Amino acid sequence: MTNLTLRKKARARRRNPSVWSSYAPPFAEMAERFFGRLLGRSLSWAWLFCVPVAITIVVGWGLAANAQEEALSPDSVQAVLDNIWILVAAILVIFMNAGFGMLETGFCRQKNAVNILAKNLIVFGLATLSFWVLGFSAMFGSGSYLFGLGGYFLGGDAATYGLDGGTLTIPVFFLFQAAFAGTAATIVSGAVAERIKFSSFIIFSVLLTAIAYPISGHWVWSGAAWLTDRGFSDFAGSTVVHSVGGWAALMGAVFLGPRIGKYQDGRVNAIPGHNMSIATLGCLILWIGWFGFNPGSELAASTAVPFIAVTTNLAAAAGGVAATFTAWALSGKPDLSMIINGILAGLVGITAGCAGVNYWGAVIIGLVAGIIVVFSVGFFDSIKIDDPVGAISVHLICGIWGTLAVGLFNVESGLFFGFGIGQLLSQILGIVVIGLFTVVASSIFWLILKSTVGLRVAAEEELKGLDIGEHGMEAYSGFLKDTSDMSGVI
Amino acid sequence: MTNLTLRKKARARRRNPSVWSSYAPPFAEMAERFFGRLLGRSLSWAWLFCVPVAITIVVGWGLAANAQEEALSPDSVQAVLDNIWILVAAILVIFMNAGFGMLETGFCRQKNAVNILAKNLIVFGLATLSFWVLGFSAMFGSGSYLFGLGGYFLGGDAATYGLDGGTLTIPVFFLFQAAFAGTAATIVSGAVAERIKFSSFIIFSVLLTAIAYPISGHWVWSGAAWLTDRGFSDFAGSTVVHSVGGWAALMGAVFLGPRIGKYQDGRVNAIPGHNMSIATLGCLILWIGWFGFNPGSELAASTAVPFIAVTTNLAAAAGGVAATFTAWALSGKPDLSMIINGILAGLVGITAGCAGVNYWGAVIIGLVAGIIVVFSVGFFDSIKIDDPVGAISVHLICGIWGTLAVGLFNVESGLFFGFGIGQLLSQILGIVVIGLFTVVASSIFWLILKSTVGLRVAAEEELKGLDIGEHGMEAYSGFLKDTSDMSGVI
Amino acid sequence: MTNLTLRKKARARRRNPSVWSSYAPPFAEMAERFFGRLLGRSLSWAWLFCVPVAITIVVGWGLAANAQEEALSPDSVQAVLDNIWILVAAILVIFMNAGFGMLETGFCRQKNAVNILAKNLIVFGLATLSFWVLGFSAMFGSGSYLFGLGGYFLGGDAATYGLDGGTLTIPVFFLFQAAFAGTAATIVSGAVAERIKFSSFIIFSVLLTAIAYPISGHWVWSGAAWLTDRGFSDFAGSTVVHSVGGWAALMGAVFLGPRIGKYQDGRVNAIPGHNMSIATLGCLILWIGWFGFNPGSELAASTAVPFIAVTTNLAAAAGGVAATFTAWALSGKPDLSMIINGILAGLVGITAGCAGVNYWGAVIIGLVAGIIVVFSVGFFDSIKIDDPVGAISVHLICGIWGTLAVGLFNVESGLFFGFGIGQLLSQILGIVVIGLFTVVASSIFWLILKSTVGLRVAAEEELKGLDIGEHGMEAYSGFLKDTSDMSGVI
Repeated sequence: MTNLTLRKKARARRRNPSVWSSYAPPFAEMAERFFGRLLGRSLSWAWLFCVPVAITIVVGWGLAANAQEEALSPDSVQAVLDNIWILVAAILVIFMNAGFGMLETGFCRQKNAVNILAKNLIVFGLATLSFWVLGFSAMFGSGSYLFGLGGYFLGGDAATYGLDGGTLTIPVFFLFQAAFAGTAATIVSGAVAERIKFSSFIIFSVLLTAIAYPISGHWVWSGAAWLTDRGFSDFAGSTVVHSVGGWAALMGAVFLGPRIGKYQDGRVNAIPGHNMSIATLGCLILWIGWFGFNPGSELAASTAVPFIAVTTNLAAAAGGVAATFTAWALSGKPDLSMIINGILAGLVGITAGCAGVNYWGAVIIGLVAGIIVVFSVGFFDSIKIDDPVGAISVHLICGIWGTLAVGLFNVESGLFFGFGIGQLLSQILGIVVIGLFTVVASSIFWLILKSTVGLRVAAEEELKGLDIGEHGMEAYSGFLKDTSDMSGVI
Repeated sequence: MTNLTLRKKARARRRNPSVWSSYAPPFAEMAERFFGRLLGRSLSWAWLFCVPVAITIVVGWGLAANAQEEALSPDSVQAVLDNIWILVAAILVIFMNAGFGMLETGFCRQKNAVNILAKNLIVFGLATLSFWVLGFSAMFGSGSYLFGLGGYFLGGDAATYGLDGGTLTIPVFFLFQAAFAGTAATIVSGAVAERIKFSSFIIFSVLLTAIAYPISGHWVWSGAAWLTDRGFSDFAGSTVVHSVGGWAALMGAVFLGPRIGKYQDGRVNAIPGHNMSIATLGCLILWIGWFGFNPGSELAASTAVPFIAVTTNLAAAAGGVAATFTAWALSGKPDLSMIINGILAGLVGITAGCAGVNYWGAVIIGLVAGIIVVFSVGFFDSIKIDDPVGAISVHLICGIWGTLAVGLFNVESGLFFGFGIGQLLSQILGIVVIGLFTVVASSIFWLILKSTVGLRVAAEEELKGLDIGEHGMEAYSGFLKDTSDMSGVI
Repeated sequence: MTNLTLRKKARARRRNPSVWSSYAPPFAEMAERFFGRLLGRSLSWAWLFCVPVAITIVVGWGLAANAQEEALSPDSVQAVLDNIWILVAAILVIFMNAGFGMLETGFCRQKNAVNILAKNLIVFGLATLSFWVLGFSAMFGSGSYLFGLGGYFLGGDAATYGLDGGTLTIPVFFLFQAAFAGTAATIVSGAVAERIKFSSFIIFSVLLTAIAYPISGHWVWSGAAWLTDRGFSDFAGSTVVHSVGGWAALMGAVFLGPRIGKYQDGRVNAIPGHNMSIATLGCLILWIGWFGFNPGSELAASTAVPFIAVTTNLAAAAGGVAATFTAWALSGKPDLSMIINGILAGLVGITAGCAGVNYWGAVIIGLVAGIIVVFSVGFFDSIKIDDPVGAISVHLICGIWGTLAVGLFNVESGLFFGFGIGQLLSQILGIVVIGLFTVVASSIFWLILKSTVGLRVAAEEELKGLDIGEHGMEAYSGFLKDTSDMSGVI
């Protein structure tokens, strides 16, 4: 029997979800195996009796093959398509880790590059594990209105996570949601860059993705979502993901204080990034990653999915163009970092409303986000909150804007479509509730860390760069051939 | 009601395209909402009368649920699959912006990196918006043989864009085509790099993607395609996209003139790129992006799609290998920039014929393209047309070659398959007509820009680098720790 | 007739695989065309007789259209979905070339960057062509137990490659498998970096992908897989791909010897990489590429596919976290290159068992792989086998571990699930047989190359860097504005 044939059999078997979903609980499984062995292996000599049966099977082969094939229905194929599409969407969202990593590293200084790369790389690993252990249960588990319970370690069934009656399997829903949790954590990374201890950051990431992010997410996206019951609408997470990451980032920046030299003698010193090539690459990776983030939030494959991709793309384009001309008008030059942040602002802005606004709404949301982000970056500098990459402006401020915009531009509930301020009030409720919770929760985390491991590296380490201090290595060792390379190694 | 349940409802609703396609026209919609409100909200107390109706609904629930599921047919699932696949293909094509950005930036000098990155980043935003406003209508709208009309701002229905009777939704077709338009514009970016004014380039991009590219594209890919009616065949755009971009790039390079120092005292000075790492990354991103570009041009999901991916891949491989050995033979060393351009040459070459040639044809097309591109780069230098990244050789020359190759290798019409020179003559017609049109149109655009905003930066700015002059920033600020970083900021 | 209409027709035609699969053999095709022309073109005046037929056709139009649509069955849509998903998976695996390229380049020195980039770029082109000519036949062709025969140049039918009765088309299966072959070759690239001749490497790559890799792969994944018949299980290639690449890399490193200066006076000199930004990007690209590698190895779209993605992701996360803390404990600092190699170690480790272990098994496999890789890197340095990027530790050692782990953690055959050591013994058999074969085959290849073109560049070239010596160019020419750039070019 060939490997291909074996796989086909395995596939047929796995298409029955009741079998392969039993992979999860190891103890039940071991019992099942044990009894299966009793019946199977110890009676293995019994195959001789199977000869007549085998003949019958061979005779009935053609029919049986047809019968097996006929088990496929349009619904079952659609279910497979739903799962494959959301898997692809999850892969795109996971790719956003590369986008954030390149963006944040490029926007910061060379001496801290290894540190930022290491944070952005390990954070998705940590988010995956903490979401597997606890976060996924806290976010989607049933149990209470405050937070979910049960189904830890992916040990629950479809009903545990509110997936009964739908087509998505637990693994694909978990992967997609874990990627979202990772996004929330990686947003924080940028705002606290160039001065936070590596150990503090990774502990905070675990706490955020295991506890804080899932709890507020539970209120909007779970089966017991009390904010959604009150009309709050956040399709793909302008608030649930981006503002939550943004609030946590804001509190981190506040508790850490600004980088040495950023605000001196009443002046704001621009600290330019060391690698705009990878920062721009990061922006473009995030752009395509968002085509998983927003259209994937449909949680199904349908002919409506591309509409969401187009609103997303229009807002990104409008945000980039608006920020370009705003910065051009203000400073006399089209600043590349503002083009980048304008695109991201448009993307964050459209995230809440991408499925419910029309094309004009998407363009307006993007344009406004692109203008807001330029002024917001200036604002946070004016109050001496140091955010090296503009993460708070992009994710928190434009996340709030995008969530409010649902109340204005949603074609089925928005103010500008004649539906009054009901939706807008629901949006404000969600923004305030989730904002307050995240500020309190993340402040507790940051303060605990401050009083135990400590938040900030020593001043000398900060001046030298965190790469040497935290990781004992440089990002671009021997980059200049004629110095360290030739003389050092050889 | 949970968010998941809400989404399922929304999905069911959106699966009826007649509902969600009405998202587009805001005024019709607002009227609809207004009357909907009269009937809905002001009668909201009328829900008491609905109790008996609700009981009836609950009784019929199981049946209704089944009935709704049974509405899925193999055709409807295939339609969803078509849309999802073309969305994925569009995402891959959009990712090509990152490929072009990294390739062009890496092939140019460090002092112009920010400028090239900014151009390549904003150009897809501009292309999206100008294609939304006008370009998509001019290309696919009905109306005339010269150019399309109607359906501006995505306000038309499926018939407006020739999509009636097919499975693709307007949004996914728009996104895929907007990505193609962006590609045409981004090709220009490379050839005019290191000396063009940022403002001139972005205006040209808008004109190209809103007017020139859609008009010639209308002649080949629309419902009133007179060149296609005359037998011209360009499956995925060797001419429609790549040569159009290439002709526009050629005229730009001609009107701009060469970079200072490129041609001096009768010699050609090689100006090597500053970052081959990101240039190679760009080439590999383009390679996978082409798996959206060519197979996606099938405009449907079918078992024939992977065949197109294989011809595409064989041609890329053959192009890379041929260019490697050609350059090796000529210069004594395998030049990395020629490996890169050879792969891209093979990809551009196969684009017209990827669905209609066989594997041998694909390999031959790629091999020839890989050889052509090496000599073409030398040729343009010999006539002092300065193309910093080889865009004209790759996209124009190999685009022409690929379009001609359809007349030779197409298994259903090509000369080498015994069908005479009819197809070849049709290909020449298309190449000449579209070439002439694009040369004239882009010359008009360039000359208008030259006489108004001006095309070229001042000589001092060019010497200093466009990053400071156009954008007021550097790409690799403080890259060297021991100089600007430590002393400057701190 | 519009282009869209034409394409729809072409699509309908191609959906019948018996027609488009005839694209492959050019001679049969030419004969077919010739007779088709006799019947078609020379009788073209005969269309007048078709008028009554045409009327009949028009009358039957509605019915015919319905009939054509009704030809779609759930099975045919599932078949399309299978092909599209495996195409997407193949694209992700092909993207891994960018991942390996960036990883290896970043981990090596600046003076050898062009050489490593060129190797990693051309290797997929070479693998594509040599797999097309010979490798695909040797791996999947029928004929013998030792290696496959027939169907060279993709000239066979579905039965030739064991695809009869399944849904995958030959092109998509070829593309997916060619991408795997390219992976095996690119693994070698890292271990032999910074000292191997470019010509030797590309010849070795061709030999590996055309001969050695397909033969041992034939024993596990073909229709005549004798190792699979003996119970050996390697779902996605921990041994078939990664260990094979790893063994070839090991022998290459042995025959080449260490880089100058690596082991001096009994000390191991660390030679740090020159660009950790692109190395980290490479790791993240590989991470998402693995979502094509492992889930795509299901060779079908099903609801079981996402489960494989989750085990893959959990192992990657666990590997990264384990390596981080292991390196932290050993050296006092969390080393970024160890985080990267830990993630890759987890990914390689889970590759064999990704479809057959449960979540806990995946996490344990990843954790162990992440710990192993740290010690393995030290071990190979201790025996003076110089592997600049850790490829042998990641791919060979963790490939072996992952293959063994199937014998421990497979829920249907593993030791820890009460099934005895049978599976484990089968795994050991496969590891030993494939290891011995690859060591012998690659040693023969390396020794032939050593005695003909030579393996290693001259010592002076190695000291200066291979970029100048092998390619006549630098990776970062004029990167520093104030030196080479301004004075050199202008």
